[in-house]
Amino acid sequence: MPGNTFGELFKITTFGESHGKAVGVIIDGCPANLDLSSEEIQKELDKRRPGQNLLVTQRQEEDRVEIFSGVFENKTLGTPITLIVFNKDAQSDKYKLIKDLYRPGHADYAYEAKYGIRDWRGGGRASGRETLARVAAGAIAKKILNNIGIQIIGYVIQIGKVKIKKIDESFVDSNLLRCPDKEKYDELVQEIKNAQQENDSVGGIIEVVAHNVPAGLGEPVFNKLSADLAQAIMSIPAVKGIEIGDGFSAATCRGSENNDQWIKKNDGKIGTKTNHAGGIIGGISTGEDIIIHLAIKPTPSIAKTQKTINRNGEETNIQIQGRHDPCICPRAVPVAEAMVALVLVNHYLLNKINHL
Amino acid sequence: MPGNTFGELFKITTFGESHGKAVGVIIDGCPANLDLSSEEIQKELDKRRPGQNLLVTQRQEEDRVEIFSGVFENKTLGTPITLIVFNKDAQSDKYKLIKDLYRPGHADYAYEAKYGIRDWRGGGRASGRETLARVAAGAIAKKILNNIGIQIIGYVIQIGKVKIKKIDESFVDSNLLRCPDKEKYDELVQEIKNAQQENDSVGGIIEVVAHNVPAGLGEPVFNKLSADLAQAIMSIPAVKGIEIGDGFSAATCRGSENNDQWIKKNDGKIGTKTNHAGGIIGGISTGEDIIIHLAIKPTPSIAKTQKTINRNGEETNIQIQGRHDPCICPRAVPVAEAMVALVLVNHYLLNKINHL
Amino acid sequence: MPGNTFGELFKITTFGESHGKAVGVIIDGCPANLDLSSEEIQKELDKRRPGQNLLVTQRQEEDRVEIFSGVFENKTLGTPITLIVFNKDAQSDKYKLIKDLYRPGHADYAYEAKYGIRDWRGGGRASGRETLARVAAGAIAKKILNNIGIQIIGYVIQIGKVKIKKIDESFVDSNLLRCPDKEKYDELVQEIKNAQQENDSVGGIIEVVAHNVPAGLGEPVFNKLSADLAQAIMSIPAVKGIEIGDGFSAATCRGSENNDQWIKKNDGKIGTKTNHAGGIIGGISTGEDIIIHLAIKPTPSIAKTQKTINRNGEETNIQIQGRHDPCICPRAVPVAEAMVALVLVNHYLLNKINHL
Amino acid sequence: MPGNTFGELFKITTFGESHGKAVGVIIDGCPANLDLSSEEIQKELDKRRPGQNLLVTQRQEEDRVEIFSGVFENKTLGTPITLIVFNKDAQSDKYKLIKDLYRPGHADYAYEAKYGIRDWRGGGRASGRETLARVAAGAIAKKILNNIGIQIIGYVIQIGKVKIKKIDESFVDSNLLRCPDKEKYDELVQEIKNAQQENDSVGGIIEVVAHNVPAGLGEPVFNKLSADLAQAIMSIPAVKGIEIGDGFSAATCRGSENNDQWIKKNDGKIGTKTNHAGGIIGGISTGEDIIIHLAIKPTPSIAKTQKTINRNGEETNIQIQGRHDPCICPRAVPVAEAMVALVLVNHYLLNKINHL
Repeated sequence: MPGNTFGELFKITTFGESHGKAVGVIIDGCPANLDLSSEEIQKELDKRRPGQNLLVTQRQEEDRVEIFSGVFENKTLGTPITLIVFNKDAQSDKYKLIKDLYRPGHADYAYEAKYGIRDWRGGGRASGRETLARVAAGAIAKKILNNIGIQIIGYVIQIGKVKIKKIDESFVDSNLLRCPDKEKYDELVQEIKNAQQENDSVGGIIEVVAHNVPAGLGEPVFNKLSADLAQAIMSIPAVKGIEIGDGFSAATCRGSENNDQWIKKNDGKIGTKTNHAGGIIGGISTGEDIIIHLAIKPTPSIAKTQKTINRNGEETNIQIQGRHDPCICPRAVPVAEAMVALVLVNHYLLNKINHL
Repeated sequence: MPGNTFGELFKITTFGESHGKAVGVIIDGCPANLDLSSEEIQKELDKRRPGQNLLVTQRQEEDRVEIFSGVFENKTLGTPITLIVFNKDAQSDKYKLIKDLYRPGHADYAYEAKYGIRDWRGGGRASGRETLARVAAGAIAKKILNNIGIQIIGYVIQIGKVKIKKIDESFVDSNLLRCPDKEKYDELVQEIKNAQQENDSVGGIIEVVAHNVPAGLGEPVFNKLSADLAQAIMSIPAVKGIEIGDGFSAATCRGSENNDQWIKKNDGKIGTKTNHAGGIIGGISTGEDIIIHLAIKPTPSIAKTQKTINRNGEETNIQIQGRHDPCICPRAVPVAEAMVALVLVNHYLLNKINHL
Repeated sequence: MPGNTFGELFKITTFGESHGKAVGVIIDGCPANLDLSSEEIQKELDKRRPGQNLLVTQRQEEDRVEIFSGVFENKTLGTPITLIVFNKDAQSDKYKLIKDLYRPGHADYAYEAKYGIRDWRGGGRASGRETLARVAAGAIAKKILNNIGIQIIGYVIQIGKVKIKKIDESFVDSNLLRCPDKEKYDELVQEIKNAQQENDSVGGIIEVVAHNVPAGLGEPVFNKLSADLAQAIMSIPAVKGIEIGDGFSAATCRGSENNDQWIKKNDGKIGTKTNHAGGIIGGISTGEDIIIHLAIKPTPSIAKTQKTINRNGEETNIQIQGRHDPCICPRAVPVAEAMVALVLVNHYLLNKINHL
Repeated sequence: MPGNTFGELFKITTFGESHGKAVGVIIDGCPANLDLSSEEIQKELDKRRPGQNLLVTQRQEEDRVEIFSGVFENKTLGTPITLIVFNKDAQSDKYKLIKDLYRPGHADYAYEAKYGIRDWRGGGRASGRETLARVAAGAIAKKILNNIGIQIIGYVIQIGKVKIKKIDESFVDSNLLRCPDKEKYDELVQEIKNAQQENDSVGGIIEVVAHNVPAGLGEPVFNKLSADLAQAIMSIPAVKGIEIGDGFSAATCRGSENNDQWIKKNDGKIGTKTNHAGGIIGGISTGEDIIIHLAIKPTPSIAKTQKTINRNGEETNIQIQGRHDPCICPRAVPVAEAMVALVLVNHYLLNKINHL
């Protein structure tokens, strides 16, 4: 605290307001001698880029990342890596009209209550644009994890009340919705379009899975892997809930149903027959897939007229203009992946010191 | 990290294995000149004490807390406060028989994978007994919060598949189940007894509410109040999910349904007409009640025979003896309250520095 | 850790290699609603700017600071403030010739031993240019302190073996040496010129004083005000020693000589008759002036031919070209002031929470 | 912060007032599977024990350390290790008489200014007795370092104005003064006796050397090895100055004198011909001996009558009774060794993560 730093060993500090000069991140603790180019980072950033199609916001940001420090001749130096994206397509005028109104579902009032001042242009620091810095840092975390065999993949499993039926990871990258179920794809898209046509928005649920995480990551008792993941995920704008493994369903079960049986697998590794625990028991990874669900609320910025008050407490109508996603889920997927990667790389590094 | 410290300004560090000499906590950062006696702390501890009735574990610990430092003539000194509870009723023999088996649903294997060693007596550090230290520290946090008008109350809202229908906070303290609904009380108790009679256990859901939290607490972007609460709650043993406000339900809604309308209240304060957000928007408290749900998995220790493997990877049966709660929910309530209190007191202190 | 962050509540994270794209700093925890312009920061930066006269390095950096975030309409937002200075006058060619040699007195070998890689251009991250970020952040810290009446001033009290005789704070700003003694000024300058003429360099001692620091700052036992000052000062490149008050002289004294007598002053405040303690006792400020000395080693980059080895361990001669200060002391003064300011503002904010 | 925690990966948190129930420490982050017995820790504690002879305080504390957690069957578990020493010989009565007076050279007033309350019994938390917890934790740090070949040794090199002439490490353990020079031993002892006979006290200088520290430890730029050592050392009660290598003498030198020439040694290792730098350049260890000096002020508690004021600001005489060391240096040696060990073990662990 104060709250713009995440992680202990692979530590990121982010900055930037939505319509300020830039958003960016310093990564401190990235191991030295890692191959790194801005292109690799750009690739991850492009996943959360606005303006991709009708489903998502029309803001046309190029969002080019620049490396300001920490990399020399395409190798990390062990010194802080600074990644910066300049804000180029900010249109602050539309916000000027509502700068004294508290937008429903937004943090306008909360920021004023906290700081006594607020950058009203595009949501300022509370904008989803802040997550760009997380994705940029997460790209490096993912690369480190990939090098040791860990893969992280996220996808949308529910939009509004429509759920997917099956998970085909190979389908995810092929569609902008980041949906893993080809058969349910049209139905999910329709759910978003319905909301959009009614000048409304809709929420959804994302699943993130981490494959091949070795057993032993997580620091009891307060930095359990599950606890740090929960902080990381809940820090993403619009997230209102997180569960690991069976999560809230586990609460309705019997112990005999929920307990995962320990077995020796064919490859000689120890694991569990089922994975209700979602890969984490006692806050420590078991070697099974880590499975996380996050609940995304519907985008608060909707075109529908809403009631609210202004800074003087007077009731008024508000109509929110600007370019807003009718459903934030698709663009939240790479952010969630990034946060999971940041947690895992921290715990991976930290676990190196548990034995001499 | 390493993971036995929680909080930045009101910082606690806990220690102790279930069957070791003692469990305890150092609280660093408690403001000076606060009236404090061990009796006040004891009162909170008694809420999570084992051996209260048939519903909960039979272990007969007196669990007397002793103040080892930081308090002089019943006033806090501003120096670290150390609270210690000696372990007196530990019965390690029953664990000796299964010390080489991996109990299903328990962290035995995960601890060994991490540390290469494990205190098998009563679960060691992974025991729920560790939470005693949190409740002791939380008692002081609660006192500070009470002094500024903040009340925290938790209760059980679901056992297995049975949900309560209404919330009467005044009923909670009157029953060992910590149920807020007099009419559904018997049904919830029966759900636990059913599990117990079948040598099984059952999970449930707890709600914690914080009243009168001022607007402005929470540190964007990674130490959002919601994010720190998520870490705190998910660090409690057996918790598999957390949601704020409408949580996972919000994901199924439209924006027009989920947005809370800003209003000026009769007392002149700004607030919202509804509270789908659960008192936190953009990671900052809004002044409305903070509402948290946590999913508790069924107690993994069940009397029913289960299959597992031993340290050599050989399959075997396991029958867990000892004194185990058929449902951990009632005793998890004071722990959840404590964790919420610890988060709030930290953010309350931290928020003091946002203005000069 | 890792080591590019300083401070807990007023927390800075710096980045940048000497000949990279830029050096900069994120300040997280600056209170909101503070008036702030880049001009104010620039003014402090100009004090440590190279190319001021013959006494200091000839590198002609304009060193213009730009605010990338955290300030809106000339007010701080409470969000992270990012300050960046682009590197414009880097001349890396001269370093290319010696990129495989270990410069005596420099960290070349140490960096390679640590990271297995090194940015040899201008010293990379180990360059004194890194301190620019400290001065920029320190400018904001100083402003906050000034607002509450605390003044920090540093000056050179010794060059080589020549010491000043008296301290006239008002003289310091009038000369580039930052010498507080008009009568000894010429002699100190001559000491530097002598070294320079012999293709050599010379060290010196700086004193920093903080006036009007309220009693009560400092956190026993490990974050004593003296301890945090020691870390801060010793983290400055080229510093090899620090003392508070009488420091090493105190070690030669009797208790009856070194003890400062407590008195009630004419203004009713409690203080001490003498100030051997340098304003800190038991790690907490007493209300008296805080007095710090720091020992600066002679600039390691000298024109004189020296012996060394290359990366293969082969002995060779080295002649260091480039633009180097014959004495770093004058430019280290604003850096030392900045570090003291950063420590004090942290402890000032932190002390607000010791009472409810 | 708050200030009772030291270290990031091998993290200690200490507690306890001088005349409270106990003093102790939690060590979080000690690697698992280390052999550990209380006897080993006791051995280090005995070095700083009071009541050893006429030279040091007469307080007869047995100071038996007890392990409360983290060790099972003489092996560390990876969980927090708690070490506690009960206070048994506290004689608070002598302090009652002066509880409203501000003892010269003591932190009484500073503590009151900070906290508004003070445990006047034996100095409370400001007592040198607090360092017992550091030595206990340091014993474990030393053991880890010894296992990897690092040795730390401290000794007294100056008492008042009398300096030693040569260093024989093997002589140190043989005398209670922890003097490394057999020939100067009597003279140093006499310096202490002289002070004592005059109801006075005397200061001194301690040197601590760390042998066989590998090159590469230290985290630029704020957690330089030198910076963290400076914080660690300056946090020890009564320390007023610290220098690394030539320290303040370096400030009087020319670069050509102070630069250490890089050489390839007979064993093939790279190092320096001289060691003016004291084993640290650019904040990173070079592989040469780390050499630290610390200045200890004379014990403030002297039998001589002194002038002071009481809490009402009224001038009065004070005569300090009780059992006080005429020179704290001998007992400060193990404390300094412990702090150096804690810094090194932290940096050793941290450095493991700089490479994947």
